[in-house]
Amino acid sequence: MRFLPVLGLAGLLAAADNPVRYDKEGKLLFPDGYREWVFLSSGLGMTYGQPAGTPENPPFDNVFVNREAYRHFVKTGRWPDKTMLLLEIRSSTTHGSINKAGKFQTAARRLEAAVKDTSRFKEDGWAYFDFANTNGEFARTGTLFERTASCYGCHGKVTAVENTFVQFYPTLYPIAEKKGTLNPGFGK
Amino acid sequence: MRFLPVLGLAGLLAAADNPVRYDKEGKLLFPDGYREWVFLSSGLGMTYGQPAGTPENPPFDNVFVNREAYRHFVKTGRWPDKTMLLLEIRSSTTHGSINKAGKFQTAARRLEAAVKDTSRFKEDGWAYFDFANTNGEFARTGTLFERTASCYGCHGKVTAVENTFVQFYPTLYPIAEKKGTLNPGFGK
Repeated sequence: MRFLPVLGLAGLLAAADNPVRYDKEGKLLFPDGYREWVFLSSGLGMTYGQPAGTPENPPFDNVFVNREAYRHFVKTGRWPDKTMLLLEIRSSTTHGSINKAGKFQTAARRLEAAVKDTSRFKEDGWAYFDFANTNGEFARTGTLFERTASCYGCHGKVTAVENTFVQFYPTLYPIAEKKGTLNPGFGK
Repeated sequence: MRFLPVLGLAGLLAAADNPVRYDKEGKLLFPDGYREWVFLSSGLGMTYGQPAGTPENPPFDNVFVNREAYRHFVKTGRWPDKTMLLLEIRSSTTHGSINKAGKFQTAARRLEAAVKDTSRFKEDGWAYFDFANTNGEFARTGTLFERTASCYGCHGKVTAVENTFVQFYPTLYPIAEKKGTLNPGFGK
């Protein structure tokens, strides 16, 4: 007896909602509406290399993930296939309105995607894309970072869950700990 | 000819989704699932008073709003009745994993809500609630800040749109500018 691969209504809705889509050249289509996705965390001036002095206005980074992947992670501690995480880099400033100290976010500068797509990225299932910023407008397609790019070195080696920096997402890390899905080498 | 006030399916779904609900004493029910709401921005160590020195680990603030209110704002530049904005305050640290500089977010410390409910809050339609934090767990109901509290002084006076600090939400401010919904006195 064979089963037909029928999606069902829920499957169809989920598929329609999934943002991982490419053009004919393999570029990633821009994730419209990503500002409605689930926010994981933000940092200010985070750097993994040795810091070169103290910048006056370090950048903020905001991380978003598509909703269906987030809900899957909350249930299982793992990312489903066709997960997309976005790293949005914004400028910061102290001076504006009634603010007197600290930093708040201003213009978006960079947008990078981490995509889990195991049928397309055979090595470890993940790939990274950059949406070029031209005068404040992001490109409609994202360009794949070649596997020689430095992102591939860290993601997968020093990340808490699969290739993702869950150690910096305070609502998800305890879930991964509880579900036992931290990478075996993480923290060692 | 008179029209009956029929909600329709979309109206019923929206009403079911709306998070503004109170208990019998007028306390605000905890907004379950708010981490799936729309993220507006975050800041680090923002203060409206004169800063008292430079703290080593200033707090992050994340601002979220319920989805239907966000979509209404994107269309109109205004907040609909039953809008809820949440201010989530988290600790920060530099030291963790491979991070070498800057700050990232850790535990949640405070959760405050700004609620627009014109039939309940007659003065200007808005009120503020605090969810007490006991050993890292937020209370299931939020307590109303009395109108003598300092929040009522700033919200409404130095805010860009109605009682909200839209000047600090970089994706919403340009919408309010374009729609002409900035408070008449804002920036003057």
